[in-house]
Amino acid sequence: MPEKVLDDISHRRFNPLNGSWLLVSPHRTKRPWQGQQEAPSKNQLPEYDPKCYLCPGNQRAQGDANPQYKNTFAFVNDYSAVKEEQQDYSPEIDNEDVSSLLLQAEPVTGRCYVLTFSAKHDTTLADMTAPEILPIIQTWTRIYASHLSPSHPLEAQAAAALKGIPENADSEVSPPKHQLRYMQMFENKGEAMGCSNPHPHCQIWTTSTLPEEPGKELVQMTKYRQQHGRHLLGDYVKLEMDKKERIVWQNDGFLVVCPWWAIWPFEVLVIAKRHVRALVDLTDEERLQFAEAIQEVTRRYDNLFETSFPYSSGIHQAPLDCSEEEAEASWFHMHFYPPLLRSATVRKFLVGYELMAEPQRDITPEQAAARLRDCGGELYRKSL
Amino acid sequence: MPEKVLDDISHRRFNPLNGSWLLVSPHRTKRPWQGQQEAPSKNQLPEYDPKCYLCPGNQRAQGDANPQYKNTFAFVNDYSAVKEEQQDYSPEIDNEDVSSLLLQAEPVTGRCYVLTFSAKHDTTLADMTAPEILPIIQTWTRIYASHLSPSHPLEAQAAAALKGIPENADSEVSPPKHQLRYMQMFENKGEAMGCSNPHPHCQIWTTSTLPEEPGKELVQMTKYRQQHGRHLLGDYVKLEMDKKERIVWQNDGFLVVCPWWAIWPFEVLVIAKRHVRALVDLTDEERLQFAEAIQEVTRRYDNLFETSFPYSSGIHQAPLDCSEEEAEASWFHMHFYPPLLRSATVRKFLVGYELMAEPQRDITPEQAAARLRDCGGELYRKSL
Ligand SMILES: O=P(O)(O)O[C@H]1O[C@H](CO)[C@@H](O)[C@H](O)[C@H]1O
Ligand SMILES: O=P(O)(O)O[C@H]1O[C@H](CO)[C@@H](O)[C@H](O)[C@H]1O
Repeated sequence: MPEKVLDDISHRRFNPLNGSWLLVSPHRTKRPWQGQQEAPSKNQLPEYDPKCYLCPGNQRAQGDANPQYKNTFAFVNDYSAVKEEQQDYSPEIDNEDVSSLLLQAEPVTGRCYVLTFSAKHDTTLADMTAPEILPIIQTWTRIYASHLSPSHPLEAQAAAALKGIPENADSEVSPPKHQLRYMQMFENKGEAMGCSNPHPHCQIWTTSTLPEEPGKELVQMTKYRQQHGRHLLGDYVKLEMDKKERIVWQNDGFLVVCPWWAIWPFEVLVIAKRHVRALVDLTDEERLQFAEAIQEVTRRYDNLFETSFPYSSGIHQAPLDCSEEEAEASWFHMHFYPPLLRSATVRKFLVGYELMAEPQRDITPEQAAARLRDCGGELYRKSL
Repeated sequence: MPEKVLDDISHRRFNPLNGSWLLVSPHRTKRPWQGQQEAPSKNQLPEYDPKCYLCPGNQRAQGDANPQYKNTFAFVNDYSAVKEEQQDYSPEIDNEDVSSLLLQAEPVTGRCYVLTFSAKHDTTLADMTAPEILPIIQTWTRIYASHLSPSHPLEAQAAAALKGIPENADSEVSPPKHQLRYMQMFENKGEAMGCSNPHPHCQIWTTSTLPEEPGKELVQMTKYRQQHGRHLLGDYVKLEMDKKERIVWQNDGFLVVCPWWAIWPFEVLVIAKRHVRALVDLTDEERLQFAEAIQEVTRRYDNLFETSFPYSSGIHQAPLDCSEEEAEASWFHMHFYPPLLRSATVRKFLVGYELMAEPQRDITPEQAAARLRDCGGELYRKSL
């Protein structure tokens, strides 16, 4: 394998999914560390915290009281980054005027949800079983479906998917007032990732604009289809199943890899094996397979350094309002970006060089995958 | 001013320098914070630390002993991210083969320096005067000049600049073995920015490749010149001097602004007022003006929350090896990316949404600039 040499030399790898390069310096983990250490994460939370604004029955900061929900509960964020109604802004654009060129702005409207993963304050995805994670995926699917544009290429799929999903009377989800363009589901887990409340939850920011990252991916995937007549992530799934060295885990529906172009030390990509364009394309069986994949990733993360592993994760799929071509180019996947590098207390900082020049990683994705493959046993906390 | 409404509504702003958008949500600082708090920074370091590998006379981890240097001292990093000599990697490229398309890599060689800012372990740029900062800029200029390609469009400027700069016998700087493409100077300051040693220093990573960020900027600046026949940052300097609301400070040579497209809460851009392409273009007077600008930024940062303010900073300028056109398109500037948002202990996390979708900021750049304008007095620590 000519690639073996990449274990030893500094090199750049290309991320075909977003079109950018990163620097890999495999020998660099050998340097001494005198900087900040994360505090070891204590897991001594109560199952119910009367002061938590996400626990069932509790009062929210500026909002209503939460219902006595059973597993998931979705509500509009009391401090949303974007809102459905706001003053208008529509400056005159004059391309001969430097203000129009250099001070460009456009209004963004939207709706932000918070979605709890469980009624229990002290649990995490790693503690839950795949059947316990399933309701989260069902709720994601319902929320996505209820924000789809009426003429969306996946309208029929959405209607079909909803038939297999129980209603969740607890959730405050309704169609948007004005059609929105993109829905970003993401979780910030752990204090190291800026999470402000340990109660297991994710956020869903839905905007009138297509954000940068999924936008870049859509451009790259569309170009690849035009050039090669195949799907970028479809080809990538086949290639990784063949090469094997970056695979962490798989089932019939999903492949879990440390991608060739991973930036974060133990970054993981969960990719649908067949051409799934969005949550509403998943069958009942695939939703459970996706729950299994999430369980495997989060449990392996916790086992790796025997800690509640911090990360940001997020789902990329077809926009809510899009053409046939954009829907077709989309390929369902989920990113996990975890900061820990060497132990529960030593993280990788993406700072100076990474911000000013180019992302840089220390261990190779192949080394990371091997370590994550090897820690698939029972959740370490269970046997403590 | 039609832009006044942007103080109240969610909107996107465009960064013409790197070609990407960010989300601004001015109302969002109102949300409660239950997450991680940075420890208040103690400044009780000794002036000399026998265990610090950067203090004069001390032994380095894998390296030599440091000389008894006076102000700056540059040496090749004992744990460089890139090296000058390594095994080769040159896979056969076959564009019909998915491996060639999806597993792209290229070798990167180079040289990484560490440069101390002062012999004193317990000082920072904010504590130093402009004349004390000047030797740092002189050393940067010497290092840049000694890595320029022999046929570089700025060769004559480099030779002239060196005449005004005293030799620094303490520095282990020499021309590279093989010509390199780009030199990234950057500082990580503070534990929150992954700095592993408080002794004031920066790093200089020099690579055979043009990294992503300066690469994107060069493309944008070149395009702007082609389309408008003027320089992007030249136009921007004029525009901001006219608008005033984002100016933090200025002298004859440099403008300090919170740019229209700032991502970090108190992000600052230091821009040369005239067309300076690289450090070697600066006159003796301008080097001192640049030192003043750095002093003003770092002192204001510390005064803002009365703490030793963490940040990453970095200089962008003409590549070491480039065409006449690339040199001409370059416009010397320095970025400061500081994470603190609300106080010495509450930072902004660029996590879930920012990583998965698009950078998001809370206060507007105009609000940030107003606050930095107002804290220009003496360094708060002096009167404690
Ligand atoms: O070289 P240092 O200071 O040990 O390391 C720091 O800066 C580097 C360059 O930005 C980063 O890659 C590291 O993650 C960070 O900890
Ligand atoms: O919404 P939260 O959890 O209060 O806030 C967290 O996630 C947001 C979305 O990634 C970030 O913008 C914030 O900086 C972070 O602290």
